[in-house]
Amino acid sequence: MSALDVQVRALARRAQLGELYQAYAECLDSGALDAWPGFFTEDAVYRVTGRENHDRNLPLAAMFCEGRGMLEDRVLVISKVMVYAPRTIRHVTAPPRVVADAGDVIRSEAAFAVFHTLPHEPTALLSVGRYEDEVVTPEGAAWRFGKRVAVYDSLIVPNSLVYPL
Amino acid sequence: MSALDVQVRALARRAQLGELYQAYAECLDSGALDAWPGFFTEDAVYRVTGRENHDRNLPLAAMFCEGRGMLEDRVLVISKVMVYAPRTIRHVTAPPRVVADAGDVIRSEAAFAVFHTLPHEPTALLSVGRYEDEVVTPEGAAWRFGKRVAVYDSLIVPNSLVYPL
Amino acid sequence: MSALDVQVRALARRAQLGELYQAYAECLDSGALDAWPGFFTEDAVYRVTGRENHDRNLPLAAMFCEGRGMLEDRVLVISKVMVYAPRTIRHVTAPPRVVADAGDVIRSEAAFAVFHTLPHEPTALLSVGRYEDEVVTPEGAAWRFGKRVAVYDSLIVPNSLVYPL
Repeated sequence: MSALDVQVRALARRAQLGELYQAYAECLDSGALDAWPGFFTEDAVYRVTGRENHDRNLPLAAMFCEGRGMLEDRVLVISKVMVYAPRTIRHVTAPPRVVADAGDVIRSEAAFAVFHTLPHEPTALLSVGRYEDEVVTPEGAAWRFGKRVAVYDSLIVPNSLVYPL
Repeated sequence: MSALDVQVRALARRAQLGELYQAYAECLDSGALDAWPGFFTEDAVYRVTGRENHDRNLPLAAMFCEGRGMLEDRVLVISKVMVYAPRTIRHVTAPPRVVADAGDVIRSEAAFAVFHTLPHEPTALLSVGRYEDEVVTPEGAAWRFGKRVAVYDSLIVPNSLVYPL
Repeated sequence: MSALDVQVRALARRAQLGELYQAYAECLDSGALDAWPGFFTEDAVYRVTGRENHDRNLPLAAMFCEGRGMLEDRVLVISKVMVYAPRTIRHVTAPPRVVADAGDVIRSEAAFAVFHTLPHEPTALLSVGRYEDEVVTPEGAAWRFGKRVAVYDSLIVPNSLVYPL
């Protein structure tokens, strides 16, 4: 590949990464929860944890899934809860920052703010934090999260953290 | 065009789309309301609607304009209101996601959070939701919204929804 | 350079600019305050000011630093304050918009929302506004802010504006 090819490829990878982040957010926000596990590899790790626990390397997590089967179980549980407590959520995810690009895996991070809206209530802030991710990037196939850790800033577990971040 | 040309063109289109979204937000946030209709095609549709109405395909809308003339009328009305109730708004718009690129029109979406600040009050959240757009993309001329639907998540019409989203 | 080279170079510059903005935010949000002055040129101007003062060209500023030495002094002061009042902040910065690209300096802007979290309290909105920046962009060396003005929308100085925006 020429130098220009290399540069274009790097730019295209960054663009595709950005789209993955926004598509993930839109999947959750539109309530298409059944499609959510499809954003992860078969053996992916998904974790939602508070910043303090994360910084201290404590294993405590508000949500933890290992493998797509656990993600699918989670969807079933959430679907039942959602019937009783309908709410909508909205992610505003900043453009991701590439920490390392190994060619087949990108390590990347992005800040997020998540808002939620209950029926007949005004929209409120649910949580802010950042994603720490590993994205598996096969040529010509869908990119998926091999690891996604959502680290929220508060010590308090957001009380409506039923839904994934 | 070579494969590389095609790829660069696609990347350039995405970059230009992203800039349109941020320029739109900055136009409204800086109070340059006179310039706002210029972001739309002559026969554009602009609609602000609640998510529930939108999902049910109900025609109810908090704001509806068809054609640039109606957008310009809207600016006149808002300018009068703003004299009595000055406020500033601030959009934080996520990078847009391309849903379909037909070459001369791009269908795209983006999440937004809009904040407002009244004099001598702290800044507060006004609304979150997403844009569902059609952007007309002529070669060598300004890109404009042929359709912009701002879907806010709450059932409640934000009480200060004087200003466009 | 060919037309394609020129276009790729412009795209690469925009991508690099976007990364600078997210890296800046991540530096502050992760508490790596010592690294913060490194985002500025030796003779950089950093200013945090309210929108009304800014629009009227008033010199009033909530924070003002001229040169990296002043930025480093600021870090020392903040580090002491942080011991007494630990808090975390989180920026959600929209993609920057290029206002002018002079080849060696880019003038750019971006909307921001900043949230803060005190121990045992829920996360809250601290400030929204926009950056007005000049980024010095040497070939093959780190890009740095030659000027960064953070203009917040409220008239009220955010009471916890200890930390830079």
